[in-house]
Amino acid sequence: MWNYEKMSKKRVQCEIINRLLSFLASIRYNHRVIKKKEIMVLNAVERKIDQYVSELDDAYVASLYRKLPHGKRLRTKLILKIAGSDLKVVKTAATVEMIHAASLLHDDVIDDAYTRRGVVSLNASAGNKTAIMMGDILYSKAFFELCSISPEVAKVVSNAVVQLSLGELADVELSKKFHTNREAYLKMVYQKTASLMEASAESAAILAGKPRNAYRKYGHNLGMAFQMIDDILDITSDSKTLGKPALHDFLEGKVTLPYMYLYEVLAEEDREYLLSLYRKRLSADEALWIQSAMRKYEIIEKSYFEAKELIVEVIKLMESLGEKDLSNIAKEMIEREF
Amino acid sequence: MWNYEKMSKKRVQCEIINRLLSFLASIRYNHRVIKKKEIMVLNAVERKIDQYVSELDDAYVASLYRKLPHGKRLRTKLILKIAGSDLKVVKTAATVEMIHAASLLHDDVIDDAYTRRGVVSLNASAGNKTAIMMGDILYSKAFFELCSISPEVAKVVSNAVVQLSLGELADVELSKKFHTNREAYLKMVYQKTASLMEASAESAAILAGKPRNAYRKYGHNLGMAFQMIDDILDITSDSKTLGKPALHDFLEGKVTLPYMYLYEVLAEEDREYLLSLYRKRLSADEALWIQSAMRKYEIIEKSYFEAKELIVEVIKLMESLGEKDLSNIAKEMIEREF
Repeated sequence: MWNYEKMSKKRVQCEIINRLLSFLASIRYNHRVIKKKEIMVLNAVERKIDQYVSELDDAYVASLYRKLPHGKRLRTKLILKIAGSDLKVVKTAATVEMIHAASLLHDDVIDDAYTRRGVVSLNASAGNKTAIMMGDILYSKAFFELCSISPEVAKVVSNAVVQLSLGELADVELSKKFHTNREAYLKMVYQKTASLMEASAESAAILAGKPRNAYRKYGHNLGMAFQMIDDILDITSDSKTLGKPALHDFLEGKVTLPYMYLYEVLAEEDREYLLSLYRKRLSADEALWIQSAMRKYEIIEKSYFEAKELIVEVIKLMESLGEKDLSNIAKEMIEREF
Repeated sequence: MWNYEKMSKKRVQCEIINRLLSFLASIRYNHRVIKKKEIMVLNAVERKIDQYVSELDDAYVASLYRKLPHGKRLRTKLILKIAGSDLKVVKTAATVEMIHAASLLHDDVIDDAYTRRGVVSLNASAGNKTAIMMGDILYSKAFFELCSISPEVAKVVSNAVVQLSLGELADVELSKKFHTNREAYLKMVYQKTASLMEASAESAAILAGKPRNAYRKYGHNLGMAFQMIDDILDITSDSKTLGKPALHDFLEGKVTLPYMYLYEVLAEEDREYLLSLYRKRLSADEALWIQSAMRKYEIIEKSYFEAKELIVEVIKLMESLGEKDLSNIAKEMIEREF
């Protein structure tokens, strides 16, 4: 069983091992070549997005795009790992990143978010209206380009955007009052977070002529686990590590799995106390009460175990397909800091 | 030369002739059959949209959709007139109407509009956020369905949505200060209004195997003239006819062609007075001053003539292709009430 109290020490050990491995790897020619190629293809995706944006022939839009933070390009890395570096693959990654950026723009308007990836969000700096329109522009240009890549990929990706938009609405609805509807929550997580990861992996498999269902499963589980772990981190991390206040989800009305599980095991009186903290800006004592209760009833372990199960399933799946890198990406996900 | 002062009388004459024609037509079996078929196909498009919405499998979304007013289905009528009633045609019309509805949802959020087609707008009744998400859902479902209709149609329609979104942004930017940039204004009108009409006509031509460039031109000119005439009506009509206050565009910062033309002919002192009224809630006297100046310098005639030229061009084009109905639709557009 994983023990979050020992994680900090474990993380230090991991860091040392990683740096050592990284040093060893750096003197191996083979690795250098692979790494260099990876960076080249990642750059090719950035250049493709720049090209798509410049084709819009609108200086203002181009200047707005330059202000958006790039993020980790997770979906691109996934696509490239599965499908290599053909032009169609680069184009698909570019459209998926534009769709992801568009969804974040609208997401930030919906959530009244004032920062994104550590910088001021576009809705905060240029207004909600500009953020909405910029989102529409990125969405539609991505759709337009998808039509020329592959009808199958276009279907898979546009279906993910349908799910994404439905998930955004479901998220707002589910955040209006406390609930313990696990099924509705998981459906929303699938729609809002997992669907585009799933579509990225499936599209890449289609382009590479690999078995699409297996890769679809991989993207799906990775996306679900990613969000479930994010939900846990909101409870266990300090504000500094998160870059936002801890226990922020509950304040925003988001009843994530740990809160449902905690509610279910609490006695009546404590349940009422928990409910009284819902959507409330918490004092240090109140926050501590939630965190202690989560610890006492081993809620974090239970929630983490669920995410881990999803990951273990796809680690096995990817190993059976000889996809060592993809299996490693999944492994890294369950080694994030708690 | 067309004379708006005689229009009211002319309209009465038109109305009498139309009713007479309508009566005569109603006793002709042939006409009845055509009319009945038209209504059946229009209904088929509505049912197709209902089906697409119900496939989203979200009761809340379905209830939101039911609250949206349907509008005149202009683009559907255009598509059906050009391409008949095949399933692909019905599907294309359904996706175009969903895209049009999505664009209006976002448009109303951008413009802070509180009514749409005579009823309370969704942003006013359910909030901006719901309107944004509902727009995203309709856009993405339409894109998803377009992928299964025809790659060519998908490209044409999604390109129109790119233009539409760019036009929305350009409209906001152009409405920030008074300008006389005719070229920028016409580009914005093309993007925001004409592009989807153009795409509707071109898509229909593709599906029907007709010469796409001619029909594209038809949709383009119809869309441009439609907006130019709308701009004129905002100046010449009374508030009751418009369903919104007259001279509303100028209040909103929209410098339409008549205002540019007026500014250009005015003497320096009057120019300053006109500028002082920009973005201002006008008194009756101020409104009258604008309307009188427009009349004095025959600005409305000049603007109307420009729209009419676009229409006459496509009337000839459609007549040369034997498209009597399409030529008539264009004719009707220049017979709207001024």
